[in-house]
Amino acid sequence: MSRIVTLLTDFGLTDPFVGIVKGVILGINPEVRFVDLTHEIPPQDILAGSLGLEAAVPFFPPGTIHLAVVDPGVGGERRPLAVEARGHAFVGPDNGLFTFLWDQPAVRAVACSNPAYHLPSVSHTFHARDLFAPVAARLSLGLPLWRLGPPVEDPVKLPWPRPRRNGDAESGEILHVDRFGNLMTNLTLSESLEGTEVVIEVAGVKIPRLSPYYGATRSGEVGAIVGSTGRIEIFLNGGSARERLGVGRGAPVRMSRSRRVNSASPRQR
Amino acid sequence: MSRIVTLLTDFGLTDPFVGIVKGVILGINPEVRFVDLTHEIPPQDILAGSLGLEAAVPFFPPGTIHLAVVDPGVGGERRPLAVEARGHAFVGPDNGLFTFLWDQPAVRAVACSNPAYHLPSVSHTFHARDLFAPVAARLSLGLPLWRLGPPVEDPVKLPWPRPRRNGDAESGEILHVDRFGNLMTNLTLSESLEGTEVVIEVAGVKIPRLSPYYGATRSGEVGAIVGSTGRIEIFLNGGSARERLGVGRGAPVRMSRSRRVNSASPRQR
Amino acid sequence: MSRIVTLLTDFGLTDPFVGIVKGVILGINPEVRFVDLTHEIPPQDILAGSLGLEAAVPFFPPGTIHLAVVDPGVGGERRPLAVEARGHAFVGPDNGLFTFLWDQPAVRAVACSNPAYHLPSVSHTFHARDLFAPVAARLSLGLPLWRLGPPVEDPVKLPWPRPRRNGDAESGEILHVDRFGNLMTNLTLSESLEGTEVVIEVAGVKIPRLSPYYGATRSGEVGAIVGSTGRIEIFLNGGSARERLGVGRGAPVRMSRSRRVNSASPRQR
Repeated sequence: MSRIVTLLTDFGLTDPFVGIVKGVILGINPEVRFVDLTHEIPPQDILAGSLGLEAAVPFFPPGTIHLAVVDPGVGGERRPLAVEARGHAFVGPDNGLFTFLWDQPAVRAVACSNPAYHLPSVSHTFHARDLFAPVAARLSLGLPLWRLGPPVEDPVKLPWPRPRRNGDAESGEILHVDRFGNLMTNLTLSESLEGTEVVIEVAGVKIPRLSPYYGATRSGEVGAIVGSTGRIEIFLNGGSARERLGVGRGAPVRMSRSRRVNSASPRQR
Repeated sequence: MSRIVTLLTDFGLTDPFVGIVKGVILGINPEVRFVDLTHEIPPQDILAGSLGLEAAVPFFPPGTIHLAVVDPGVGGERRPLAVEARGHAFVGPDNGLFTFLWDQPAVRAVACSNPAYHLPSVSHTFHARDLFAPVAARLSLGLPLWRLGPPVEDPVKLPWPRPRRNGDAESGEILHVDRFGNLMTNLTLSESLEGTEVVIEVAGVKIPRLSPYYGATRSGEVGAIVGSTGRIEIFLNGGSARERLGVGRGAPVRMSRSRRVNSASPRQR
Repeated sequence: MSRIVTLLTDFGLTDPFVGIVKGVILGINPEVRFVDLTHEIPPQDILAGSLGLEAAVPFFPPGTIHLAVVDPGVGGERRPLAVEARGHAFVGPDNGLFTFLWDQPAVRAVACSNPAYHLPSVSHTFHARDLFAPVAARLSLGLPLWRLGPPVEDPVKLPWPRPRRNGDAESGEILHVDRFGNLMTNLTLSESLEGTEVVIEVAGVKIPRLSPYYGATRSGEVGAIVGSTGRIEIFLNGGSARERLGVGRGAPVRMSRSRRVNSASPRQR
């Protein structure tokens, strides 16, 4: 049975950890197709893992299985989870990594603790290999979720960094810096702002409008744009906004309605 | 329909961008097999992307589709391209990335601008996901090139760094430095030089002959060899030529006929 | 014929080398499924390659083919090898990379020197592409090992870093540092020590017992644990043991029976 299994971890690519996880899965279901989301989540950074997974999931077909392991609590008390939501399945530790799923309709979670679906010997340091990989492989073969273990009604939720609104302005923060030095914020254009001009403030710099595309801003100039996940993104045309502005994850960003007189209309009169 | 899709980008591996592109393709054609060429092209370095693609293409079977995205102009005026050449297909931005194809026989290019073959909503920052991925997926299902959009007769060409000849000598440059610190040049053994002894000069160092293999040069000594693409390559046996010589991409390299009296024949007398 | 081919190299991921190797294989057997073990073996570090391969092999199903290339002697005198052991096949240079196989029962090795199974033109710098890839592809199609070339009875063996025992104590060393800064040693719990308390000494620090899991040690405290390969591993809960202790590969580690009076039993009285 051909099924897609995506993988997202903080394992890096210098050790054979990810390859070993794939070997275990192929030993159980040789038809699985793997897609690596990323293995460069900063070590033990659960929020970064959750954000990466949230960005990727909507672009995979129904039935995809997502194996996500950022797991500082491996071998201890934290429960192992298997989840069904949005027509996809998710396997990984119960530490908040799946927080973005908990407000979805018809989400079901179980503790995948049934040892019949683990490797015969489970280490205390590598559950991705010994527990999560065989569970994902069984799901890919069609095993029903409820067979894996008892339901979980109270999965761990991370505090999610949401913007705060003050009248027409919104205060948010930088969630993530990508490879190009673009700063991804948690701000989106609310309905009340859509179609109006907005001002973005970050690191003491005022960006007077949103750009329609990167290249519409002069080379060497900081701009803001609606990014590929719908969130506002700060960029430097031809360079790294992170380097130019000297800010990173967690830095505050403010978005407000522009007070400038719109200069386009008068000219058209 | 099982088809190979290679991917070459400057997206890096720390963000889930590449995985998302694969998810979109598998949602359209679940039978695609992916081969990552590299995602570590330096950000927005179109020439480096073009050189990497040129080195890889000859080793893939007919019918392979190459998705290549190094795209500083994303969302702006630059055209999206789909190309057929050498029995392969190519998808990516029209910014010079496919320059090495334009002198091929029977090359055909179209602007893949038909929105019927894009995702329903196309962002201004991530055309690899919203436009190039679905186009590559459709090609993998057998869609004819001409359906994607109008022909392009004037695709963008990069100035290609070619060597200059002065009599028997050739002046070239370093095109690329690989992981081992080997310096790949744009010099090849012309017919007039093949079989003769040549001298390579780089960074003030004279290399008096070509080595038959890396280990034929003393450990710690700089050598030159005909590399795996047929181009002359500078190496340091047991180390990094880049570190030893302190030069990188763009540095001049000179190749000339050796003036040494051939010492092998006299000894054999 | 669908077969798994794993790849382990020191090629890195910035050049298209690995993708090219896969292209060659798919041109011969389009049904191969690839699993990358790692391509970040430090350049020309044969022992690190051998250790990575040894850790991964047991988790792959019978019939898997492992293509492993860390090959400072490429193009020179060193023989190219194909090996059958443990129901798996192995292809790569005869330089010690497969040392961990030589004490296996029923191991068979040949020099895969028959040019009928190489690419028509073999470079002197990229045998992974021109020689090992086509050989692995032929094996994946069912070619018998003996067809590849003559038997090899004396493959190269690396000196393997084994611990030394002094009475109840064992002296070993750090074999590898993983992405998290965990220090993997070559020490295992011998039968005489299993079930007893042990003390680990490394970099002047005494670790008074083994932890059952990472989180059982206080945050910021150095601990030791039986790692996922059965070897003793030194870790820092919530950080990098490598950074804290300032030691890496090759550093000595000592394990001895604890002399502490066991304090648990008296309390239970």
